Amino acid sequence: MTAYEDGGLLSPGSAGSRVDEVVGDLAYVQGLLDAEAALTRAQAALGGVPAEAAEAVSAAARADGCDLRTLALRARAAGNPVLALVSDLKAALPARHREFVHRGATSQDIVDTATMLVARRALELMLADLSHTAEELAVLAAEHRDTVMAGRTLTQHAVPTTFGLKAAGWRSLVLDSRDRLRSVRDALPAQLGGAAGTLAAFGPPEHARELVAAFARETGLTEPVLPWHTLRTPVADLAGALAFTAGGLGKLAADVLTLSRTEISEVRESAGGGSSAMPHKANPVRATLVAAAARQAPALASVLYASLAAEDERPAGAWHAEWEPLRALLRLTGGAAENALALVSGLSVDAAAMRRNLELTDGLIVSERLTAALGAVVGRARATDLLTAVAARVRDGEGTLAQLLADIPEFAHLDLANLTDPAAYTGAAAALTDRALERR
Amino acid sequence: MTAYEDGGLLSPGSAGSRVDEVVGDLAYVQGLLDAEAALTRAQAALGGVPAEAAEAVSAAARADGCDLRTLALRARAAGNPVLALVSDLKAALPARHREFVHRGATSQDIVDTATMLVARRALELMLADLSHTAEELAVLAAEHRDTVMAGRTLTQHAVPTTFGLKAAGWRSLVLDSRDRLRSVRDALPAQLGGAAGTLAAFGPPEHARELVAAFARETGLTEPVLPWHTLRTPVADLAGALAFTAGGLGKLAADVLTLSRTEISEVRESAGGGSSAMPHKANPVRATLVAAAARQAPALASVLYASLAAEDERPAGAWHAEWEPLRALLRLTGGAAENALALVSGLSVDAAAMRRNLELTDGLIVSERLTAALGAVVGRARATDLLTAVAARVRDGEGTLAQLLADIPEFAHLDLANLTDPAAYTGAAAALTDRALERR
Amino acid sequence: MTAYEDGGLLSPGSAGSRVDEVVGDLAYVQGLLDAEAALTRAQAALGGVPAEAAEAVSAAARADGCDLRTLALRARAAGNPVLALVSDLKAALPARHREFVHRGATSQDIVDTATMLVARRALELMLADLSHTAEELAVLAAEHRDTVMAGRTLTQHAVPTTFGLKAAGWRSLVLDSRDRLRSVRDALPAQLGGAAGTLAAFGPPEHARELVAAFARETGLTEPVLPWHTLRTPVADLAGALAFTAGGLGKLAADVLTLSRTEISEVRESAGGGSSAMPHKANPVRATLVAAAARQAPALASVLYASLAAEDERPAGAWHAEWEPLRALLRLTGGAAENALALVSGLSVDAAAMRRNLELTDGLIVSERLTAALGAVVGRARATDLLTAVAARVRDGEGTLAQLLADIPEFAHLDLANLTDPAAYTGAAAALTDRALERR
Amino acid sequence: MTAYEDGGLLSPGSAGSRVDEVVGDLAYVQGLLDAEAALTRAQAALGGVPAEAAEAVSAAARADGCDLRTLALRARAAGNPVLALVSDLKAALPARHREFVHRGATSQDIVDTATMLVARRALELMLADLSHTAEELAVLAAEHRDTVMAGRTLTQHAVPTTFGLKAAGWRSLVLDSRDRLRSVRDALPAQLGGAAGTLAAFGPPEHARELVAAFARETGLTEPVLPWHTLRTPVADLAGALAFTAGGLGKLAADVLTLSRTEISEVRESAGGGSSAMPHKANPVRATLVAAAARQAPALASVLYASLAAEDERPAGAWHAEWEPLRALLRLTGGAAENALALVSGLSVDAAAMRRNLELTDGLIVSERLTAALGAVVGRARATDLLTAVAARVRDGEGTLAQLLADIPEFAHLDLANLTDPAAYTGAAAALTDRALERR
Repeated sequence: MTAYEDGGLLSPGSAGSRVDEVVGDLAYVQGLLDAEAALTRAQAALGGVPAEAAEAVSAAARADGCDLRTLALRARAAGNPVLALVSDLKAALPARHREFVHRGATSQDIVDTATMLVARRALELMLADLSHTAEELAVLAAEHRDTVMAGRTLTQHAVPTTFGLKAAGWRSLVLDSRDRLRSVRDALPAQLGGAAGTLAAFGPPEHARELVAAFARETGLTEPVLPWHTLRTPVADLAGALAFTAGGLGKLAADVLTLSRTEISEVRESAGGGSSAMPHKANPVRATLVAAAARQAPALASVLYASLAAEDERPAGAWHAEWEPLRALLRLTGGAAENALALVSGLSVDAAAMRRNLELTDGLIVSERLTAALGAVVGRARATDLLTAVAARVRDGEGTLAQLLADIPEFAHLDLANLTDPAAYTGAAAALTDRALERR
Repeated sequence: MTAYEDGGLLSPGSAGSRVDEVVGDLAYVQGLLDAEAALTRAQAALGGVPAEAAEAVSAAARADGCDLRTLALRARAAGNPVLALVSDLKAALPARHREFVHRGATSQDIVDTATMLVARRALELMLADLSHTAEELAVLAAEHRDTVMAGRTLTQHAVPTTFGLKAAGWRSLVLDSRDRLRSVRDALPAQLGGAAGTLAAFGPPEHARELVAAFARETGLTEPVLPWHTLRTPVADLAGALAFTAGGLGKLAADVLTLSRTEISEVRESAGGGSSAMPHKANPVRATLVAAAARQAPALASVLYASLAAEDERPAGAWHAEWEPLRALLRLTGGAAENALALVSGLSVDAAAMRRNLELTDGLIVSERLTAALGAVVGRARATDLLTAVAARVRDGEGTLAQLLADIPEFAHLDLANLTDPAAYTGAAAALTDRALERR
Repeated sequence: MTAYEDGGLLSPGSAGSRVDEVVGDLAYVQGLLDAEAALTRAQAALGGVPAEAAEAVSAAARADGCDLRTLALRARAAGNPVLALVSDLKAALPARHREFVHRGATSQDIVDTATMLVARRALELMLADLSHTAEELAVLAAEHRDTVMAGRTLTQHAVPTTFGLKAAGWRSLVLDSRDRLRSVRDALPAQLGGAAGTLAAFGPPEHARELVAAFARETGLTEPVLPWHTLRTPVADLAGALAFTAGGLGKLAADVLTLSRTEISEVRESAGGGSSAMPHKANPVRATLVAAAARQAPALASVLYASLAAEDERPAGAWHAEWEPLRALLRLTGGAAENALALVSGLSVDAAAMRRNLELTDGLIVSERLTAALGAVVGRARATDLLTAVAARVRDGEGTLAQLLADIPEFAHLDLANLTDPAAYTGAAAALTDRALERR
Repeated sequence: MTAYEDGGLLSPGSAGSRVDEVVGDLAYVQGLLDAEAALTRAQAALGGVPAEAAEAVSAAARADGCDLRTLALRARAAGNPVLALVSDLKAALPARHREFVHRGATSQDIVDTATMLVARRALELMLADLSHTAEELAVLAAEHRDTVMAGRTLTQHAVPTTFGLKAAGWRSLVLDSRDRLRSVRDALPAQLGGAAGTLAAFGPPEHARELVAAFARETGLTEPVLPWHTLRTPVADLAGALAFTAGGLGKLAADVLTLSRTEISEVRESAGGGSSAMPHKANPVRATLVAAAARQAPALASVLYASLAAEDERPAGAWHAEWEPLRALLRLTGGAAENALALVSGLSVDAAAMRRNLELTDGLIVSERLTAALGAVVGRARATDLLTAVAARVRDGEGTLAQLLADIPEFAHLDLANLTDPAAYTGAAAALTDRALERR
């Protein structure tokens, strides 16, 4: 690696992930070459180019030996790497085949198609990780269907909930992400328009249209209705689905970070990041890295949405501004998906700690219930006053909430043990969990 | 209007639009009240609340007389306006019905449901405008199916295209926007979860679940699988679809702004914004306002995507950060949709100016074609040299491109009049236009 | 308030704040009128306009009776409200003075100047709040100079720190915000350029230049070197300073939210937002609203930075996209400053809870120190092993860390009571606090 | 380069720039090692570490042989690369020196210090480019002080201006950028706080404080008042200054793109990006790449501003989210500065084309002036009507504006040749240019 190259030093959230590999410069160049080869093959299939040339181009379209850095530098003159790459590709071919490379295409045809190919591979990997994560979360939710814990709102204990419901909620976001990514993946189109999107250099209209279809087939991408040089639906849709996914995983990470706090300690990452000087520390590193991705993704997506407003037939800047943000989005989200899977797969859940924390408000975590039940006897306002007073006495060690309430004659007939039991006030948590798990 | 209120002074892009009205404070309060009334009705339908109370609440749930400013000020203590509004609603009811207001609900149930109601109305209006815009664009595209104009890439004339294809492209983005907004609209869910999303205060699980379904029916929104207090799929989906729409309309605006330039003058807004001191000016005001919306929408959407990462059962900040950005997005996009419709409906297209501009490169706008045709005779490199030389002579007034090329013996046999005619090199533009217009 | 107006319903973080009032439509219109009046007065001072006219314009330039909503609607045609406002202002004047209104100016001269006037008032209010907040934090930091608490990193207890140092850190961000806002405020310039920034309609160059100076004097703003219609330094600088301030206050809010958690309970807002059904809840509402502002500000600032790239002499969209985001930034940041002051002024700090939480790791919170001290005796690796083993025994109730370590012969000579005391391992926290408080 | 590495393929705007080199992984690792070496030297200077060890560490702290990719992969476990790097650095030292590496430091001390070192080098390079650009623009502005061109507002010709004033405006933004970057550069601080910012592991408070000063001296960075692990002023200030610079250069690029349009052709980049198939095309590639940078920078800056709200003593995510966006900002802005210099240095300005375009409105570009001058004779309303009518006749070829107006008896006495000459209506453009050029 030279002074100019990056290998993931500042991206511990994605370095070494499978997505990282398929979106790097090498993979991108391969995508560009695959697009060129597919174009020549499509033209051969329609009869305009010798089959032998198409075979030669396909064979030569290998990124392996490519000097990526030099290519990057040569890309500056034209503002994109296609011109330089085409020249290299031609040089690698017998002279007689050269004229059949990049015939009629504009560089954006190639870059956009390569981007879709790269995105498709990245989405496939993410989708696999998300599916596994959803499976793991289904197990977790089922296992903890009845594990009671404090429901927290605006940082405060509110009423009890269950860890099962929480895990089911995470899973629903993972499935929502999966559905959005899938539908984007299934629509990723090939790009072929020529200099200004009229297909003019590809022969008569009917032929040109057939060529677009053949090109789409060769790439495995969908056939677009129109060239989309400045109709950036595919890129904007990627932006939305990726920001959604990063954000959805960010919810999971936010909860794990909170529940991992020393004072809460209800969950724990399997392999926390250690500290040489502080042996007691087990940092929730994976949740941290997922959270960091969720903080970056929305801004990157905003650049892509802004590029929708691209002027003319091919724009001066809006298109160029898409490349790095889209790749960064793929990388961050791909890394987050991989980290989320590892995080969820190894998550330790401490039901005892959850139970312990439920006691922190001395029973007031069920005050909503008690206010209703006691209020039915003495009126809501007085019930609230009594509860607050009794809770103070609980805190002073005078007894449990049930005991002290039982001393109040009006309440003696109530089943106070049950009414003050957090585990008896989880509402529909279990039923909601069951229902949410029915979704596939 | 008092010192504290805004009435659209800084929002000429949306002030007075139909969406503006349905997302304002008054409409929002009505949404909150509609949610409260729907909850009581749903509870009455299931038997827990007297029908008479539900009727009384529904009748009292009118925002008209509400002192909105005072309500806004009272909202500060709790961080949202529901507590204060519920207190007002109760005060407006006979004492016996008061206990049936807001029963079991948390303020987020009401705010989220109101947001969905407001969003639905706003989306309906946008969808109508987008449909009309698509119709107008279909007419424009069909009418100018064969109107040749310069295709421009990186600000330079590239090859000819047609205005029909351009309009068809705009239309495809409008239809893409419509499809995305529609699918979001159809999924907008009611919110009902209670204090921490367990439905605990709504009775036994089965009953609670039925209540959610009844509540959804009463609001006309869809029934959620889980309470979504911190599963913000509906809001994130709105963000994406609205940013998409604003951006898609921004493409149209960007093109209109370019084509309206004094030097280009190929299109003109029907009612340009005038200037008292400069009678010749006709500013493309509508395109300007649409462009301004497209510049703001992506950042607002990014705030909403970032709010996906909401901690706990209800978050301290992530939720509160959604309200104004989402409303601003609805307003901007709604205003942009209305302006785009007006812009498109009244757009003057100057085919003669388009034709005139095509001549600016002295025929070189068909150089792609000539390079291919002449290259077939004398080789590509020499063709390029000859073309450049001849173009210089054209510029010096020595003749037309066709005439001067005809003087070169090797080319004498070519149909140079046709080869140098921009109108004869629009490729599949017309066919693509036809095909794009098939989409409904 | 009509259906079109907003009064802060969705902005509990700023509704009713002092900044809210000075940035509303009414204040903005007054700013526009102040700019018009200042222009006429400046022209009168230089002799081109009768003094009587300047007085009449100044007297008539009152926003009070203005029909703001109608003005907003009339603003749509020109894309900004100046044309309509000037027409109203003229109508309010005797016919002979009318020609002296808006003479030579372009609408952007007036809007930009008004924006600077509005921003100045808003910044003054914020600066006052920030100064008070810094004073309160100085008191808090001094008072808790030696209040030991857990230092937390990546959510985990790391080593002890003090609440004084934390408060001193918050204060340093408040002072950094103050310094940035002050320097922006001191540079806010008047805008005067005429139709395309050449001052051509203001008479001979020397006269025009004097007019700009006189105009700046009349407005109390600085004199710009160049008209800045598309040189948006003042707006971008506002964006940066406001996003900084919102973010800096967001740090304070993030800490308060964490320390307010039920499990941590080390600080508490004086007047937590209550819940009718859950009497034990005291939501950290102010911190929540500040946090919500910090989540929105960066995206709004990004729109303003993007508007730097404004084409031509006056742009079609970039300028229009500034208005609402800048106002929203002023409002959010102003509200956050006011909330932060209230939050800090009434913050309860529970030193006993801090002390209690310090025990949660059974002494391991000083493991960094012990590893060093014990390592000096038995080597670092063995020290770490011993510590981990002993901590497990502490957790099992076999004794305190000091007691159990004292049983190990090699360590018997160490002052283990001191070595295991968190309060004895706060490093330079107190000294850093003292030093930070020296800053004024 | 392996499959995981990037070498700038998708960043033609910065690949190969000087900034690119100093912000890459290799430079970053060198920054990390420089920080470690500076710490050991500072400790040696204060007497706690043998001088020999400090020399050995400084000698060993070389990134050259480092396996960057493996380092990146090892960074994942801890969430940052410091632990792994320290282990490598120790391994490269004689055993007796190892204990003196990273003594008392936390990984964030090292990463933050390295970031400041990297940022400083990048800013130096940008500042040099900006200074040169300002010089070139001064030459251009002086040279074209009286080159008249159309002033354009909302895309329409408004009144004449000069290219000198435009260039002077670009220069003022470049100087504003320079001033902001300079002041940020001069304040870049070293970071040293230890595990939770108390300096506890660095010995007694007074010693620790001296160590921070010595560390700052060794790094050449400023001494911070407080550790800034979660007081992110330096990073936020970088964000603002870089977004400002990218945006300011974006204004220049936006103008060049507009003025390069085929229909306008008033300026031209020296070395336009060519097209093999379209020999007439000379794409404004540098302006395009600068514009692309300006589109990305604000969103990246927004991530950094959002990271101000970092919880605790060191945060879980907010810090990690800074690294890549800050580097990307440095890269984009550095590349933009280099491209802007090249762009400006080689810009062709076609004064004849400017003059030609001025005629496009048949004299109406001076209508503001004529309306005033003719209005003084016949009243403003009638003047406007006459002008519009006469302009129509000019367009029909009946004569020049001066000739036709001279036929109107009331105007016969006016110096119509001068009044209709765009070059005579540039107002204070020249004077403003002169004045702006006085700024250094």
